[in-house]
Amino acid sequence: MGERAMAQRRVKGMAFDMYGTLVDVGAVAEACRAVVPDPAAFATQWRAKQLEYTFLRSLMGTYQDFWRVSEEALAFTIRRFGLRVYPAQRKRLMNAWLSLSPYPEVATALPRLKERYPLAVLSNGSLKMLRVGLERTGLLPTFRWVISADAVRLYKPSPKVYELAPRRMKMKKGEILFVSSNSFDVVGAKSFGLRVCWINRTGAPLDPLGPEPDLVAKSFGELAAALG
Amino acid sequence: MGERAMAQRRVKGMAFDMYGTLVDVGAVAEACRAVVPDPAAFATQWRAKQLEYTFLRSLMGTYQDFWRVSEEALAFTIRRFGLRVYPAQRKRLMNAWLSLSPYPEVATALPRLKERYPLAVLSNGSLKMLRVGLERTGLLPTFRWVISADAVRLYKPSPKVYELAPRRMKMKKGEILFVSSNSFDVVGAKSFGLRVCWINRTGAPLDPLGPEPDLVAKSFGELAAALG
Repeated sequence: MGERAMAQRRVKGMAFDMYGTLVDVGAVAEACRAVVPDPAAFATQWRAKQLEYTFLRSLMGTYQDFWRVSEEALAFTIRRFGLRVYPAQRKRLMNAWLSLSPYPEVATALPRLKERYPLAVLSNGSLKMLRVGLERTGLLPTFRWVISADAVRLYKPSPKVYELAPRRMKMKKGEILFVSSNSFDVVGAKSFGLRVCWINRTGAPLDPLGPEPDLVAKSFGELAAALG
Repeated sequence: MGERAMAQRRVKGMAFDMYGTLVDVGAVAEACRAVVPDPAAFATQWRAKQLEYTFLRSLMGTYQDFWRVSEEALAFTIRRFGLRVYPAQRKRLMNAWLSLSPYPEVATALPRLKERYPLAVLSNGSLKMLRVGLERTGLLPTFRWVISADAVRLYKPSPKVYELAPRRMKMKKGEILFVSSNSFDVVGAKSFGLRVCWINRTGAPLDPLGPEPDLVAKSFGELAAALG
């Protein structure tokens, strides 16, 4: 159903969320293993706080960039877990965000998609985080645009962030297919007016806060197949 | 330290957060017991989604009132837990938000505080939720103002919500002592410029997103004592 609709209407470019969509943030837990007794719980809390702080800072109008917000979330999580973590270890934990690997299916599907559409990254990450991260994965040349929420000093799901995609890509918002694994990001992008594919790897329910995505795929392979 | 500062500077009125501060949202888990195998986990997820949706809807600019947002969060949680919940049961679960009891120390401390200051409630809750809830606890006559975020169609920690307090109470923001148990609410109110007491019942760390509260108390009893 979504597939036919996608084929019929004109997609002129694609934009991708970064963390959890292109690259697997699960590896952050690996980096925590050296420091923390329960790395999975620690990394989950860290990630949840990182997102919460992007929401809170946007709402309060006290923007700080994603690197700083991630540091603040780490500081909270360390205190919450009652740990002592030395500055050098903190630095190593933070650096995990620069060395995340793409999901295997992403590395396979992106070249196929790139043959058909110009591609962008549209992420909360600061430009430096995004560039360093994409460079290390070898994916940087795949993208014509690397777009950071930092340009508007607000975070997703503010419409001002999604508005960066049509502006930078010089396309109408209905011509851009935005791809994200994060439910709030899907809802935000769709509510702004982009066309949206939700990569739902875990079979989670969608947050019922707005219009449904145009396409739901279990993986980038399924997305590439749907686009024909 | 906080105590002396509080006594020295002029407090002319007090405003209180509702859910988790005046009334114990833990009772929501009790209401879930009839419907759900793991009521504590269910209620925790429901509450977390309820808060997340207030942030997301504020950021997206797609406000719905707190009753509706709570229903949406319930719908998500039911799907997430893979449950079948009949409409009558859903209604009973929602009604739990109207029948929350005040913390015992709150009921003791409020009359003492009311002798010294005019009191307000400043909450995300819709006016109807707040009025019904306060009426059932018998606390409604304690408050001169019941102020809902609904008036500005945004949620905490947007400064527009906190701005309602000085406007309605006809006081300067530095003359109002705002009391909340929710860390994001403490940060938001303080960042706006209210004077803030954080009721930290669990010894949680503060979210490091802004200036620290003027006072940290373990309970309303400690707060009342600090105010002399």
